[in-house]
Amino acid sequence: MGEPLRSVLIANRGEIALRVIRACKELGIRSVLAYSEADAGSLPVKLADQAVCIGPAPVNASYRNARAVVSAALAFTVDAIHPGYGFLSENADFAALCEAEGVGFIGPSADVIRRMGDKIEAKKIARRAGVPTVPGSVGAIAEYGEALAVAGEVGYPLLIKAAAGGGGRGMRVVPSAATLEKDLAEIMSEAEVAFGDPSVYIERYLTDIRHIEIQVISDGSTVLHLGERDCTAQRRNQKLIEESPSPVLDADLRRSMAAAAVALCQEVGYRNAGTVEFVFDNVSRTPYFIEMNTRIQVEHPVTEMVTGIDLIKLQLQIAGGLPLDLTQDDIVVRGHAIECRINAEDPGNGFAPNPGRIGAFRAPGGPGVRMDSHIEAGYVIPPYYDSMIGKLICWGQDRDEAIARTLRALGELVVDGIVTTASLHEKIADSPEFRSGRFNTAFVADLLSRTESTDRASG
Amino acid sequence: MGEPLRSVLIANRGEIALRVIRACKELGIRSVLAYSEADAGSLPVKLADQAVCIGPAPVNASYRNARAVVSAALAFTVDAIHPGYGFLSENADFAALCEAEGVGFIGPSADVIRRMGDKIEAKKIARRAGVPTVPGSVGAIAEYGEALAVAGEVGYPLLIKAAAGGGGRGMRVVPSAATLEKDLAEIMSEAEVAFGDPSVYIERYLTDIRHIEIQVISDGSTVLHLGERDCTAQRRNQKLIEESPSPVLDADLRRSMAAAAVALCQEVGYRNAGTVEFVFDNVSRTPYFIEMNTRIQVEHPVTEMVTGIDLIKLQLQIAGGLPLDLTQDDIVVRGHAIECRINAEDPGNGFAPNPGRIGAFRAPGGPGVRMDSHIEAGYVIPPYYDSMIGKLICWGQDRDEAIARTLRALGELVVDGIVTTASLHEKIADSPEFRSGRFNTAFVADLLSRTESTDRASG
Repeated sequence: MGEPLRSVLIANRGEIALRVIRACKELGIRSVLAYSEADAGSLPVKLADQAVCIGPAPVNASYRNARAVVSAALAFTVDAIHPGYGFLSENADFAALCEAEGVGFIGPSADVIRRMGDKIEAKKIARRAGVPTVPGSVGAIAEYGEALAVAGEVGYPLLIKAAAGGGGRGMRVVPSAATLEKDLAEIMSEAEVAFGDPSVYIERYLTDIRHIEIQVISDGSTVLHLGERDCTAQRRNQKLIEESPSPVLDADLRRSMAAAAVALCQEVGYRNAGTVEFVFDNVSRTPYFIEMNTRIQVEHPVTEMVTGIDLIKLQLQIAGGLPLDLTQDDIVVRGHAIECRINAEDPGNGFAPNPGRIGAFRAPGGPGVRMDSHIEAGYVIPPYYDSMIGKLICWGQDRDEAIARTLRALGELVVDGIVTTASLHEKIADSPEFRSGRFNTAFVADLLSRTESTDRASG
Repeated sequence: MGEPLRSVLIANRGEIALRVIRACKELGIRSVLAYSEADAGSLPVKLADQAVCIGPAPVNASYRNARAVVSAALAFTVDAIHPGYGFLSENADFAALCEAEGVGFIGPSADVIRRMGDKIEAKKIARRAGVPTVPGSVGAIAEYGEALAVAGEVGYPLLIKAAAGGGGRGMRVVPSAATLEKDLAEIMSEAEVAFGDPSVYIERYLTDIRHIEIQVISDGSTVLHLGERDCTAQRRNQKLIEESPSPVLDADLRRSMAAAAVALCQEVGYRNAGTVEFVFDNVSRTPYFIEMNTRIQVEHPVTEMVTGIDLIKLQLQIAGGLPLDLTQDDIVVRGHAIECRINAEDPGNGFAPNPGRIGAFRAPGGPGVRMDSHIEAGYVIPPYYDSMIGKLICWGQDRDEAIARTLRALGELVVDGIVTTASLHEKIADSPEFRSGRFNTAFVADLLSRTESTDRASG
């Protein structure tokens, strides 16, 4: 039993920094924002109780500079550090540094971050916990003969993945045995160069899949789940739209995936908020564990909107040593929520980043609409960071109402001066595939190529 | 059984016009906004599918001009008219004109509006339905002798109320029998002048009261309730903050008030959305029916946030002749919601209206926050209308969280260029009385006078 946090340093920027500041304010926790020179004029800096510049714009000099962040935390005598997502949030060394310096890290232990961050190790833990994983090699593939044996069980096409990869990087599809030896050698040397780690493993290549993840929360003794998020609407492995509940799960699948996620957390001794990610094979309707994110995720608000539970507050309370004051039965999903990630990117120009100065800004409002954004009129989007400028989350009594709200709210959104992906979200949300709920991870690419040909034909 | 509305004319302005436009968009209904010259540049005009100017700024020349509104509806061949609140919304003649011209009126029948708009008639209907009313005269008082007899039963101090009054107008407290004759004569002649109707009635004067109301919805055959709203935080009989649920009702009282409201609607043959208003005597913990509002109310969003039900959409569906597709058991209250009416008024200068040009505008965002407002940067608040520029509605898992969110969100709100009542809301929401939930309708006046003396003492 600890005592509630009184002060928190936020080592992040943009909407997630603002999100944590908001939770701190509501809990009466002093918020100190560690920001880079490029973010000095940003809304989170204005709204935090205190703010400290920790370095210049490049991330390695500020938001990824573990030493600078911890020094700021010590200088401002905060109880703990919230890392947000990205940057230092899944950096085990950073968590260990916090532990060594006596500053709380709002997340799981350094050891758990390290173990779950190693994809091969995570897969082994999942198997121990009885959680299904994609058929393939249990550990790293040492040489061609081993790969050939695994391939015989898995079948072609198969996937070779770098253990240290992620987000679509360090993967290769092997169409047949003919190229296996060459592909294996190449991806291993690429992984060595890109990640400093040549370890690879082999998996069955699933093509008609969805991405579904389970939100978990644990105080270190009780592990609870908060249902799933469906993140199948992606472009090049980048999530675009997330929703909860998933339009394809039935009660049995939902229950078994949640139970698997909880079992995995219990196996590894998980603490704080986390997400257990699965690929869901549409053909066999089977979920397979792929990885765990040991941090809060961009798409956490859809879970908040259907459960009514503030996940960032739970993170802060758990980090203060307070036990969870709710049970699994208290967590009830109501209605449906959809999140659109609004990026400063030009869909008409290969999704090129589109930083610049925002003129007028109008956030959508009214019933069921939540806007999480750090932008405002006159804000200059710095070119150094992720292009996401906000998240629009819409809730409805059912999926149809959530879609109608999303389209209505996108129509109200005004971000003058730059091009955003809002128009893409309108296209997706209004498409027959999205409305039906029946699609897979290739759907957005298909929609885009279809739209491009239509645009050409009518242009 | 009708068919869904395809088009609606909105005969209103400001946030409620925007609110109805939003519901229409989500239902795929064409929205036509009837606006005054003073509102030509307003956000609702920009967001409606179509807009038509119906006259100059003064309300009698536009928003209260029944003929102009109906003509616009006919010219744009809409299925129905949404009157919002205020203006023509409780005007039985207007509803009758719509009926005569074959345009739907989104609300109850002209006959029901007329009967419930007559306070004496409404009281009689309530008594017939077994709904408790404030002890006093059943009908209008004809002369002094009758008043004296009623006063004998009711006791002093008592209240004389004009039947045609409302919102705090046309009321007088009579401290003792000594002034009864004189007071009666005066208030009757005042009522004659002010409302064109000298009818008055007598009621027990309750001093330690709350204002609690029940939201109802009916398709003409099924009457459902959506719980209560507590509107006790008032200043000079004007509601400032509304919340749901009420912090003082227990399950039995809640049930009996809801049952009374439903019985009243059944007695009168009510259709569409309505609100049954009660005063709640803190001393005896007894609710008494005072009046029914036969329209949507300003504070409807708190009900929407705790039930997840979109009341404007229900209004539109019922007006299209669709039966309610929900039962009482489907209506479940979750958490707590608080609404602050943000007015362009100066609390430091006797709440003088403060129209003018808005510079920067920042709407609060993040979890549990809903902003219903028609203002934007550069908007000029016209001096002709109500001073409300928006409503901030915050939801929390419990009342404490809703209060914390309200304070957090008020802190984010920026309306440059004019003075608003946001600071007053901060004072109220942060006060020990409001936090405790134990207060009455005099609380805000007490808080203000206390603050003024403190300001003087420290100034």
